[in-house]
Amino acid sequence: MSVLIVGTTALDSIKTPTRENPRLLGGSASHAAVAASFFSPVQLVGGVGEDFPKKYLALYRKHGIDVAGLQILPGKTFHWSGEYEVNMNHRRTLTTELGVIETFQPKLPAAYQDAPFVLLANIAPALQLSVLDQMRKPRFVVADSMDLWINIALAELLRLLKRVDGFVLNDSEAQLLTKEENIFRALKKLHQLGPKYVIIKQGSHGSILSGPKGQFLCPAYPLHLVEDPTGAGDTFVGGLMGYLASAKGSIDANIRRAMVYGSVTASFCCEGFGVNATTKVKRAEIEKRVKELEALTRF
Amino acid sequence: MSVLIVGTTALDSIKTPTRENPRLLGGSASHAAVAASFFSPVQLVGGVGEDFPKKYLALYRKHGIDVAGLQILPGKTFHWSGEYEVNMNHRRTLTTELGVIETFQPKLPAAYQDAPFVLLANIAPALQLSVLDQMRKPRFVVADSMDLWINIALAELLRLLKRVDGFVLNDSEAQLLTKEENIFRALKKLHQLGPKYVIIKQGSHGSILSGPKGQFLCPAYPLHLVEDPTGAGDTFVGGLMGYLASAKGSIDANIRRAMVYGSVTASFCCEGFGVNATTKVKRAEIEKRVKELEALTRF
Repeated sequence: MSVLIVGTTALDSIKTPTRENPRLLGGSASHAAVAASFFSPVQLVGGVGEDFPKKYLALYRKHGIDVAGLQILPGKTFHWSGEYEVNMNHRRTLTTELGVIETFQPKLPAAYQDAPFVLLANIAPALQLSVLDQMRKPRFVVADSMDLWINIALAELLRLLKRVDGFVLNDSEAQLLTKEENIFRALKKLHQLGPKYVIIKQGSHGSILSGPKGQFLCPAYPLHLVEDPTGAGDTFVGGLMGYLASAKGSIDANIRRAMVYGSVTASFCCEGFGVNATTKVKRAEIEKRVKELEALTRF
Repeated sequence: MSVLIVGTTALDSIKTPTRENPRLLGGSASHAAVAASFFSPVQLVGGVGEDFPKKYLALYRKHGIDVAGLQILPGKTFHWSGEYEVNMNHRRTLTTELGVIETFQPKLPAAYQDAPFVLLANIAPALQLSVLDQMRKPRFVVADSMDLWINIALAELLRLLKRVDGFVLNDSEAQLLTKEENIFRALKKLHQLGPKYVIIKQGSHGSILSGPKGQFLCPAYPLHLVEDPTGAGDTFVGGLMGYLASAKGSIDANIRRAMVYGSVTASFCCEGFGVNATTKVKRAEIEKRVKELEALTRF
């Protein structure tokens, strides 16, 4: 089954202690769409400027991503630049040029409105709501977000959370939103905001699912070298939704493995700048790391 | 089989944002011995002062811990006091009064010298070496340490590491000792220092084993409330060694489950001040949490 993904489609200029890479393909929807494409057909919703490189459109198409919902708007593509510290755990935003994303309004092609799986990747909650308003009757809707929206668009975010099945956020965002230091107490409060499934990302420490069938501690794949973690969280949730859409059976029967597939896809993302490493992965390499994670956690 | 445990036997005065508890039973050997006692007979090696409360000797005995190797020395018991921040992840030492620990020299009773399992819990590496020198032919020796010894007794610590089978330390200590930010690269360097088995503790994120049969990602039990994490690392390694000494078969066949038992025992430690919660645990409660961890990580 197909996955509809809305989010930012951007150009990222990324500096790490060892390298600098300008104007890479970035944005939450780009990372998530490439990740999901390994498992399921993807329908992309986003907005880019007239400066958006043709090679990036070709890259989406190489992954079989449907770009009928990608608007090319007058103006410049959203451009983010940032810098990582030595330990890769802290990043500093250098510049944010919103460009066309400032006025972008998602418009779903008719063929998108019946997508059974919907990923509202990180973008303003008002736009995530607008996509939901245009859907007929999706089977499973997951939203991602970020600290910015918790700080400046909390009312819309809370409205959104009442309408989604799943919510994905990282540990510091969970603490910010619930005012709870303890992650397991935070999970309880997050469910009270609406979502049946809550997933808290913890970077290299893995992620935690809380759902109707209890909790799942999902491991991160051990990486000896992290080249650039930008987009790893988007890749995780993209891989998760792509795998879920491809799997037969109930959500509960598949969501744990879906998280592991998301986690493994995100591990490849970290091994190159932007989507450079993810885009080169073969499905067999993903399967190999999933098997390795099984062996790494069995007792 | 029995486990010999050497380390500090101390009094801890602990302040958390909600409570304050003076002169609790503490020290690496106390926590580790109580934890190990759930699984195997324990032989304790340590030194306390004449002020050491009789009720704490009774507590050791209640756990069947052999205290023939516990010296009662003229002077005061080692006393540590510290304070935790709101999130329980950072603690500040308020005072350290070494007392009798300053001149303590471990002397092993004859009956201790054949112990098959030896845990050199956190104490000066020179004292850990002195215990090893008094052992006949132990089957499995594990050492714990801390940042202090890396900073002030590195030569002794490095000598010790050439003589142990296993080394347990936390992530920041691994980084300090190897000058490697990446935990998996740090593991490689730690093996080069001698130990066949290296375990890196990551607090609420669990722990990582690297050994001859590859790596194991050991989960931490999800806790909704952490009352006092003091001694959790000592409890982890104590439980681990106690379980290993109780299990039939090779070290490699048992060490993963041993880590899980250590992790679960440490989760109880965090739920009370000092050893208050650990000491009340029933074996059935440990088994229940081990089963829960299996369910929490299966995919």
